[in-house]
Amino acid sequence: MVGGGFAGIAAARALRHADVDVVLVDRRNHHIFQPLLYQVATAVLSPAEIAAPIRQLEAKQRNLNVLLAEVTDVDIASRSIEASFPGVGDRKIAYDYLVVATGMRPSYFGHDEFAQHAPGLKSLSDAETIRGKILAAFELAEATEDDGERARQMTFVLVGAGPSGVELAASLAQMVRGTLRGNFRRIDPARASIVLLDAGKRVLPTFAESLSRRVTRRLTKLGVKVLTGAKVETVDAQGVVAGGSRIPSATVLWTAGVAASPIPKMLGTNTDRAGRALVDPFLKVVDAPGVFVVGDAASVMQDKHPVPGVAQAAIQEGQYVGRLIAKELKGRKVKRPFRYFDKGNMAVVGKNYAVLERGWLRTSGFLTWLVWAFVHILALPQLQNRLRVQRQWLWSYFTGQRSSRLIPEPPREADPDLTAERPLVP
Amino acid sequence: MVGGGFAGIAAARALRHADVDVVLVDRRNHHIFQPLLYQVATAVLSPAEIAAPIRQLEAKQRNLNVLLAEVTDVDIASRSIEASFPGVGDRKIAYDYLVVATGMRPSYFGHDEFAQHAPGLKSLSDAETIRGKILAAFELAEATEDDGERARQMTFVLVGAGPSGVELAASLAQMVRGTLRGNFRRIDPARASIVLLDAGKRVLPTFAESLSRRVTRRLTKLGVKVLTGAKVETVDAQGVVAGGSRIPSATVLWTAGVAASPIPKMLGTNTDRAGRALVDPFLKVVDAPGVFVVGDAASVMQDKHPVPGVAQAAIQEGQYVGRLIAKELKGRKVKRPFRYFDKGNMAVVGKNYAVLERGWLRTSGFLTWLVWAFVHILALPQLQNRLRVQRQWLWSYFTGQRSSRLIPEPPREADPDLTAERPLVP
Repeated sequence: MVGGGFAGIAAARALRHADVDVVLVDRRNHHIFQPLLYQVATAVLSPAEIAAPIRQLEAKQRNLNVLLAEVTDVDIASRSIEASFPGVGDRKIAYDYLVVATGMRPSYFGHDEFAQHAPGLKSLSDAETIRGKILAAFELAEATEDDGERARQMTFVLVGAGPSGVELAASLAQMVRGTLRGNFRRIDPARASIVLLDAGKRVLPTFAESLSRRVTRRLTKLGVKVLTGAKVETVDAQGVVAGGSRIPSATVLWTAGVAASPIPKMLGTNTDRAGRALVDPFLKVVDAPGVFVVGDAASVMQDKHPVPGVAQAAIQEGQYVGRLIAKELKGRKVKRPFRYFDKGNMAVVGKNYAVLERGWLRTSGFLTWLVWAFVHILALPQLQNRLRVQRQWLWSYFTGQRSSRLIPEPPREADPDLTAERPLVP
Repeated sequence: MVGGGFAGIAAARALRHADVDVVLVDRRNHHIFQPLLYQVATAVLSPAEIAAPIRQLEAKQRNLNVLLAEVTDVDIASRSIEASFPGVGDRKIAYDYLVVATGMRPSYFGHDEFAQHAPGLKSLSDAETIRGKILAAFELAEATEDDGERARQMTFVLVGAGPSGVELAASLAQMVRGTLRGNFRRIDPARASIVLLDAGKRVLPTFAESLSRRVTRRLTKLGVKVLTGAKVETVDAQGVVAGGSRIPSATVLWTAGVAASPIPKMLGTNTDRAGRALVDPFLKVVDAPGVFVVGDAASVMQDKHPVPGVAQAAIQEGQYVGRLIAKELKGRKVKRPFRYFDKGNMAVVGKNYAVLERGWLRTSGFLTWLVWAFVHILALPQLQNRLRVQRQWLWSYFTGQRSSRLIPEPPREADPDLTAERPLVP
């Protein structure tokens, strides 16, 4: 198992009764509940509230060994991976079966120079970076004497109107109008401008058109300016250029694209444009015996449509492969290919409003939002996270306050009288 | 007001009804509840749980303006300070009264080269650094094949047996024996060695000798090795040399010394060896009209003893100066010098045990621990923090689990096929 996200954890769990040594390698010590990452970025939740140490999650699975290491190479021929243990060194690990579940990272469609100005949102440190940028922008707007600069600091541009972009924009809109009210003396945070850009024709393109229209209306009501059909040409230190015109902005956030981590490419198989491995209907990699790819790192086709890169698909794929391996180990052959069962697709647009699509069913509004909240609380790993997130939501719902308004502290400047050659704090 | 710690906030609040513009400058956007910082370092609490945005704390005080900036110079002659606003530039701010409340930072007694190997504990980022180091040590111990290296990773040395050192050591001891149990496959975290070093004769030197003895016994029972009379000679990448012998350790934590920030020195007045400003009985700086120093940054003598650097002293000093300024503004003269009222001194030694000294009263044990917990919950800023910390404590008390076992994620390695000149994430 490489990767401790939804797919990797599901695969490891499915092997808990198998007579096998399971090794789960991840570069992080924690599993992240990705669907709520945007709430860490907007200071509603603390990082630890949507994360769980992988070791603790799986402490009771005695056949599982969790390793904190980064996979640097895969050798299909000798059936081994090369893992780099930070501070310890590199080591080869042999496998009989390899499950790659390494997920996605932000991607800038070949414009990697955008990255430094427009962080993406895939990890806890991404979320903390975004949170710090948003909060610092208001501090800078309060501090500056320059009108143009103040306007630039109070303009937030979100590139990409998929679920992440929509959820971030709505959460940010409610923060500036609620949470920050009365906190500043010279600026009015409620006058911040929040722009949601997308090159496509509508927001939430994976949902039905009628839901897109409803979400656009809701976003507009919350004060978000929705600009569709606007292709981003440049992102630089001053802002963005989109659809031919420049929007000066100090905070540009990127949710437009993701690409697979480099690992699927190491398998020597075909990958799609986003770097995802093409797998057969059993999620196996052709020509690489014993190798599977699951979750966002895999490109799985079903009924001529790609299986979407969502948590429930990742979990189902992980479970499928775990069970398949368990059966093969018992000498049985699995004949049924993987089949994704779509439990429904949801997106939340601020307080009291969510949209849901499931087959022919399309709902939106307050009740859908309650369902969204309920489903997400239940899906969190560990009872403690469920209780904590639930309480934070209740608190923030009724008070408008957000619990994690922390800007990272600047490093200490060394006292000139005390300075040695090295900095006071490394 | 320079500094948004206990003293600075208390001074600002004491001026809330005064007809005056109060400006509070801090380099952080958040106030930290320092007495529980050690629990962030040992993963019991999340950073946000002991922090509160200064703006939000004081949102209702309309005569207060909070600025996120670092003070770089003080000009006594022109009655102004120079503040550096990150990302905006420097600005002079004129004052009628200046209250310096800039607190302390870790100090290495002239051995600044120790800093990179032995982080101190004064800020949230310090606490997160320590938490990451402790958790990573167990990962490295699990990963290494070398017996000597494994022992070194599982040895934790805490330098300084004041309250911070004692509290950290006890909390760490309970983490290795409780929280981490069953999480590893090759190592047994309970066999970690925790060494508390101090050059002095006993732990908690500011408490009565009988309490020091009881605390030493308690620490020993928890599995902490207490070494007093052991002067640290070297701290390097391999461990420490103390009392002539080397202790190999991958995690050395420093709570032995603190020194004032550089600001008191800028006042042109005398400072003590730790860089604290010497003030008169009214907490004024001699020869600097309108300038006060409060909290840990001030060296205040009372009955020939220094007022201790604890939260309650900082709060009392801040309040005193705020009230004094309010009276002077009304044309009244304050005749009564500052007087510290000692409400009692406490330290906690893990679960169920604390010590308390107040005048002739000395207590220890479970009831004292309950008092400690109660007092600290009540003292937290903001109702929400009180509720959150209380719930974390209850959870962790009954389950042994800790909520924030996060090791910071390593930066993403750029995909060689995608790499531009700049890194993928800045």
